[in-house]
Amino acid sequence: MEYKFSDKISSLKPSAIREILKATSLPGMIPFAAGNPAPDAFPVSEVQAIAADILANRPIEALQYGVTEGYAPLIAAVTKRMKEKYDIVKEFDSVIITSGAQQVMDLSTKVLCNEGDVVICENPSFIGSLNCFRSYNTKLVGVSVEADGMNMEELEKALKENENAKFIYTIPNFHNPAGVTMSLEKRKKLYALAKEYGVMILEDNPYGDLRVAGEDIPSIKSLDEDGIVIYSGSFSKILAPGIRVGFTVAPSEVIAKMTVGKQAVDVHTTQFMQMVVAEWMTKYDVDAHIEKIQAIYRKKLNLMCDMIDSELGDAVSYVRPEGGLFIWCELPEDVNALEFVKRSAENMVALVPGTAFFTDTAGKSNAVRLNFSTPADDKIVDGMKIIGKVLKEMRG
Amino acid sequence: MEYKFSDKISSLKPSAIREILKATSLPGMIPFAAGNPAPDAFPVSEVQAIAADILANRPIEALQYGVTEGYAPLIAAVTKRMKEKYDIVKEFDSVIITSGAQQVMDLSTKVLCNEGDVVICENPSFIGSLNCFRSYNTKLVGVSVEADGMNMEELEKALKENENAKFIYTIPNFHNPAGVTMSLEKRKKLYALAKEYGVMILEDNPYGDLRVAGEDIPSIKSLDEDGIVIYSGSFSKILAPGIRVGFTVAPSEVIAKMTVGKQAVDVHTTQFMQMVVAEWMTKYDVDAHIEKIQAIYRKKLNLMCDMIDSELGDAVSYVRPEGGLFIWCELPEDVNALEFVKRSAENMVALVPGTAFFTDTAGKSNAVRLNFSTPADDKIVDGMKIIGKVLKEMRG
Repeated sequence: MEYKFSDKISSLKPSAIREILKATSLPGMIPFAAGNPAPDAFPVSEVQAIAADILANRPIEALQYGVTEGYAPLIAAVTKRMKEKYDIVKEFDSVIITSGAQQVMDLSTKVLCNEGDVVICENPSFIGSLNCFRSYNTKLVGVSVEADGMNMEELEKALKENENAKFIYTIPNFHNPAGVTMSLEKRKKLYALAKEYGVMILEDNPYGDLRVAGEDIPSIKSLDEDGIVIYSGSFSKILAPGIRVGFTVAPSEVIAKMTVGKQAVDVHTTQFMQMVVAEWMTKYDVDAHIEKIQAIYRKKLNLMCDMIDSELGDAVSYVRPEGGLFIWCELPEDVNALEFVKRSAENMVALVPGTAFFTDTAGKSNAVRLNFSTPADDKIVDGMKIIGKVLKEMRG
Repeated sequence: MEYKFSDKISSLKPSAIREILKATSLPGMIPFAAGNPAPDAFPVSEVQAIAADILANRPIEALQYGVTEGYAPLIAAVTKRMKEKYDIVKEFDSVIITSGAQQVMDLSTKVLCNEGDVVICENPSFIGSLNCFRSYNTKLVGVSVEADGMNMEELEKALKENENAKFIYTIPNFHNPAGVTMSLEKRKKLYALAKEYGVMILEDNPYGDLRVAGEDIPSIKSLDEDGIVIYSGSFSKILAPGIRVGFTVAPSEVIAKMTVGKQAVDVHTTQFMQMVVAEWMTKYDVDAHIEKIQAIYRKKLNLMCDMIDSELGDAVSYVRPEGGLFIWCELPEDVNALEFVKRSAENMVALVPGTAFFTDTAGKSNAVRLNFSTPADDKIVDGMKIIGKVLKEMRG
């Protein structure tokens, strides 16, 4: 049979980048291309104890169907923490649990966008979110990213020129892939512009707790007085990604529609995993655990930055991230990034070329994204030495 | 802010039925409206042992990101069982793991349908699937269900009249809500018609292993020589629904597109839950467990049928199911089904009115769906006596 696929799925073409990345799963490859949490950042003994307790005392609750909105004690724990610690969850807001934060992107697009509608996003941005928006046949309009976040003049221009823009997608903290954090001034400006143009904001904050330097900046959602911000949160980076538990805080009217959408896509998020997270949040010291993983990532980030400075030196430029998992590294003009990625892979170091992250997949970029959370410390050293050598060879 | 939602989500309106069902969550309500497995059908001690073993010996694998296609040993176990036991998984097929079978409906529609395309389905059919198809702005075309499955003349007419039909959705075994099983003759005819008109088949088989009488009938997928059948399987009914693990067997080209779609909606299915299912399938006797739950449901189904006969008698008509979880019960013409459901709820028995399951939500039906898996045996007796009394009162 000759298959005819939908326009929306046909628009998601495997790219040349995917072919390069295929090689990166070879055994022995040093993984600077991934985005996995460090294995020692998982609270393994806590999860063991919690899982055993739940299955011993409440097995049927863990194995039976749950409700679409999520496990009530988890919703309560998330709401409490978000309110008390981050001033998120306003009177007009509700919280639902999602199957990872990726599902927040999916449900937001599903409820807000018709085909052809515009999503405004940082350029570059997280490829998983961009592909999600694309899968609804939306049009992506990119806004440049600076050291302190989105270029606000470009954002206003994008809002002016696109009356059918439905939301602005942003990763304000420790941006993936750019590594930068949006200033408070720009957060306020972004909020004011969204309000002025009647466009919602989708604030994606998977890395917010992974700050290793500098001071916390209030989330855009905490500024929300008008019910225009959808906030996406995740347990992937502070607990574990394999459990696929995220959440969203958004105006109750929007949450009601997202719930109808979620019912149709996966009924509800794994009940057992939701119970594990709820127990972890209520019986253990989440803040102490976050401090522990911040220490792990602080060490790794500093190590990788030191190695960039010593092995790549002045040939490259980067903004030193204050947290998160990624460093965006601009290569010198005389080095082609795709070729650099290819040669690094041949030498057993996996990188992602910057072009992967742009709204226009044919977009030009001469950067690479480096991840420091996945490789062990000694592999950071080894890998940086290797790509330093590759760079020197390519520059003659 | 005044929210503008997408056309597709706006089409999923809360119905009058939903209001009636709200009352059914009251404590003390006898649950004939649900579709939950019986609590004693869960392999609790096995899951306890497996979960403890995984978290003791392979915690990082369980907590870290997995691949979108699914946990490789689970894919292997599913492939082996489907091949050996059901002659499913042809040379041209692949298998991926999904977040419950509901996600198979979501991904199938995503990859096959543009807005306005037609999905042909049984009428009545499972409301969760119908709402999923609706959420892509497809047009539903319903085909009547008879005691031996879809009306084939109506199906051919629907195929003739709808050139943009993309797939035929069917629940051939122990249909939800109709309770009927499609004959082998009709399965062959359905396959031949789909082939003739170049339309795919989405075969949803969540209840197939829950046969309590009669002989197994080959799946439509087992007849597939042309790569036109997408098969949806689930662990919700034979293991547990709260873990949200399902799978799909489909032509590799289709699976490749579904994988791209899944990456954008939830990255991957919970790794820990996939590992639990894989261990259960490889280290325990799945067939013995299925026999155990068949015995549980055989008893419950027979009990409810006996109670229908004694309490509702000749006033109603139904096809005695050979398995599954549901009985479709046609009420006498002089009784309004919605009113019957309302009065039953007032007397603490929850039912779903037949109208909930039709492609046209304004469709006429004078049936109710009865579920026998959720209520304890004594509650089946109590509940049937109550609705028998309600029926008598309504008929004066």
